[in-house]
Formats: sequence, structure tokens, C-alpha cells
Amino acid sequence: MTSVAEPASSLDSEFDRATEVAHESDGAYRADLPVDWRIGGGINGGLVLAVAARALGAELGGSPFTVTAHYLSASRAGAANVRTEVLKRGRSLSTGTASLVQTDERTGRERERIRVLGTYGDHAGLDGEVLTTAVPPELPAVADCLSSTDGPRLPHMELMERTEIRYDPACMGWLRGKPSGRGVIQGWLRLADGREPDPLSLLFAVDALPPVTMDMGLPGWCPTLELTVHVRAVPAPGWLRIRHATKNFAGGLLEEDAEVWDSAGRLVAQSRQLAKAPTPA
Amino acid sequence: MTSVAEPASSLDSEFDRATEVAHESDGAYRADLPVDWRIGGGINGGLVLAVAARALGAELGGSPFTVTAHYLSASRAGAANVRTEVLKRGRSLSTGTASLVQTDERTGRERERIRVLGTYGDHAGLDGEVLTTAVPPELPAVADCLSSTDGPRLPHMELMERTEIRYDPACMGWLRGKPSGRGVIQGWLRLADGREPDPLSLLFAVDALPPVTMDMGLPGWCPTLELTVHVRAVPAPGWLRIRHATKNFAGGLLEEDAEVWDSAGRLVAQSRQLAKAPTPA
Repeated sequence: MTSVAEPASSLDSEFDRATEVAHESDGAYRADLPVDWRIGGGINGGLVLAVAARALGAELGGSPFTVTAHYLSASRAGAANVRTEVLKRGRSLSTGTASLVQTDERTGRERERIRVLGTYGDHAGLDGEVLTTAVPPELPAVADCLSSTDGPRLPHMELMERTEIRYDPACMGWLRGKPSGRGVIQGWLRLADGREPDPLSLLFAVDALPPVTMDMGLPGWCPTLELTVHVRAVPAPGWLRIRHATKNFAGGLLEEDAEVWDSAGRLVAQSRQLAKAPTPA
Repeated sequence: MTSVAEPASSLDSEFDRATEVAHESDGAYRADLPVDWRIGGGINGGLVLAVAARALGAELGGSPFTVTAHYLSASRAGAANVRTEVLKRGRSLSTGTASLVQTDERTGRERERIRVLGTYGDHAGLDGEVLTTAVPPELPAVADCLSSTDGPRLPHMELMERTEIRYDPACMGWLRGKPSGRGVIQGWLRLADGREPDPLSLLFAVDALPPVTMDMGLPGWCPTLELTVHVRAVPAPGWLRIRHATKNFAGGLLEEDAEVWDSAGRLVAQSRQLAKAPTPA
């Protein structure tokens, strides 16, 4: 058994098994989306992105610098195919696309789940200069935060067992019917089996928290239309600090920005998604 | 002749002529990138995106909600071909890709300039509710700003004739060798021939100002690797207010965020790009 005190190697971690892709031919890969990463009606969108991005990385080499996914239909647990296309192989940067498809059980027809466009490079080879004005979120200590298991336990939320999240209590008033109204959710995150973060797992980390609309007093789900992630550095081992916020809820849509900071205090990823606002009950 | 007092209709405007696409067959379009939109070594990246996005819009219908472009090689003045692929036609949203290619004069071989992934819908049909915490940039009145013609006149900058830009003087100290160091450039923008903004022209507007690195005291160009634009509302006629900022300059890369506000005080577009930092001279 793997405990948090004994970090999982990337060979036996839940995340690495879930994102495993088997090469078939000509840029085509087979994958299997495990039910363990289900949240509500589908498989978590960040995990599905990580699967497609892993296949694309196998073709391009390197790790993701900037990746965009458009979500076309809800992913289900089970077999999936990823087809990649290389657009450019450069000295330092390479670009390609990935399409993740599944066979619809009902119709027997293939349905595209996500289309990805990404540019990859060598994070280890980046210039060391940092001129950042971004400041990490101020969070209470891990021990003073709310655990992800303090919230309501709903069916089909297997995803919640895959991560440990410690929420800033100031953002979680909505659990008691008292949302702050700010549209911010922040906290600490790590994978439950102790697998340390890396550029691929950051693609999952940016979309692992509940939607910020919960903090605006708007219950319900926010389906992602599009998610773009910039991975800016290889994260140091340990807890990640994640801040999600929205500034512009309008026209039934909202953007949701995430910043991910590592244990060394470095901004390692920035993401933005365009999501549908929850439909009023 | 079209003057600013007499706004250009979208039929005879410079922007509409520059982004015109002629349908060939099976989602393929012919375009011509005019030298008038050149900036330095290539055609402005926002204009090239608008050309590809116009072809994609002809296939999908509607206007762009979220569009991502990866820049693969520098676009030159002259003929271009855009190939589109429809991924999904939905009731309210449709998604597709566009690839803009040109023939390399030297080698005679086709080179892809940009690859675009976008989701389109009907801006006019969006729900009217707005809950925004974003605040428009505080700008001096148009008459108190610096004109784009106050800066240095360089060769191959035809693009500067296509727009009228009025810069906040607080962001333009770099013209006198005194950058603020904040990494912010903001100002007013409209198309020079008076053509009013719309969702398509916002794709151009988000990348029409000089790179924010100028305000950080880093002269030189910042090639865009990837640009994602969310068009959130149909802009009202008149001047646009644009704010560009970066928070994280690191590893030889930086993100550049833009917000575009219309004359009615509404946040109409948000964009983020990942760009290469200027190479020290």
C-alpha cells in the first residue's frame, strides 16, 4: 500500500495509471478513462485533458508549455482513442493537436470528447530569470483549512478520493448556505497517493476544485467550454496552492482563472477557462 | 474617401477588405494578407487570426466566443489558404479548427502560419445578466493621451496607419527611455477609417498594442506562441479601452493579458497570450 509518507513513484501512482496511453500506430493511442476519476455525470475534464496531453507529449517530446482544450461532449468511464497530429517540430518548441474520442454505447458511433491544441518544450532548459509581480494567495495553514471530506458526500464523486484538498474556510461559506459572493475558491491540493506534481499533473490541478460560482451563491455545475493552461515551471514537490477566481459573469458564461503555486513559492501554472453558468434550478 | 466623421460600412472598410475570404470548396478558403497590415518582419498576428476566424465563422455560423491560435511561422503579405474543419455543430455552440497556410517563396513549399481552434455562437442571443467585479482601466481623456504617431516612425510599420491609438502617458515613459517597470500598456483604440468594432475585430484589437515588455524596460519584439481570446459581448460603437498587463515574466516567456472595454463601459473581450521574451541585444 502506498501512503502519503511514502510518495508514489510515477510508475505506480493513480494519476499515472489513469493517464496511461498505449501507442497503436501513426500517432494513434489507446487509453482507458477510469471510473475512479468520475465527478457527477462524467470523467473530470482536467484528467481527460491530461490523457490527451500525455499522448501528444509522446509524439512531440517535452512537456506542455501551453495547451488548449475544447470540450465537445461529456467523457465516460471506459475505452478511449487519442489521435494526434504534429503541426511543427521546432528546435525548442513543437506544436500539435490531439483528439480524444469514445464510442457512444447507445448509438455505437464515435463521439469526440475533447480537441486539444498544444505547444511543448523543455521546461528544464528554460532561462532562470524571473520577474514576477504575481503574489501567491494568502492561505491559512493546511491544518487550519477545511478538508475536502468536510463537504457533502454525493454519489459518483470518486474524484474526491484521488486528491487531498484543504480549502480556505473564507471561500467555503456556501457549504453552510453563506457564500462570500466574491467568486473565489482557494486552497491546498495534492494527489491522495502522494504522487508529486509535474507539468502533466498541473493540467489536472487547474480544474480540480469546485466551480467559483459556488462562492457566488449559484449552486450547480459549470460545464467547461474551453480550458487553456500555461505550465510555466516544473513544480517543486509538496502541496500546491491554487486560487480560482472569476471577474466577469455575463451572458450566461463566465471565465474562471486559476493560478497554481508550488511549495517553493513559484507560480508554476496559469489557466483560464470559459464555462457555462449554472442553469437556475 | 472615408473619413472618421463618416464611419466606414463593413463593406468598404480596410479591416473587412483585409480579412475577406473567398470560398473554394469543402471548407477551404482563399485569402490575401495585405502589406498594409505589416508590422516589422510580418503581418500583425491579430489580423491573421481574424482572417482565419472569419473563414471558420463562414463554416460554423455565428461569431467567436473563444478562439485560440498557435503561431507556427511568420505570415507574409500575399496569398494565403485557410482550411477549416467542423468538429461539432450544436444547438447553441459550434466548434471547429482553421489552418492558415502560405507558400514559402524560397522553397515553393507550403508552410502553416497559424492553427486555430474555436467555438462560435450567437452573441445577440446571450442572457443579459451581468455580475462583474472587473473594473475598466482608468485612462486620461482621449485628448490627453499620446497619439500612436508620437512614437518613433520605423520602416515596415504600415499597421500603424490602420488604427488610431491614444496611449495613457503613464505607460509610455519607455519612449523617453524611462519605462515605469510595471509591465502595463493601456489606451484607447479605434480603426483609422472609422469602422466600428464587432466580435471579429476584437480578435485584432487584443493584439494591436506594443508588447508590455517595453514598459518593463525590455526593448525588442515578443513573438506570440499562443493567443486565446474570449469575446464576451458585442461592442458598442466608439473607442475601445484596452489594458495589457503581464504578471509573470519567467523562463524567457511571459503571459500577456488584455482586457477590452467598449464605449458603454462593458468588458467585451479578455485575452491571454504566451509570448517569448525579447532577446537581449
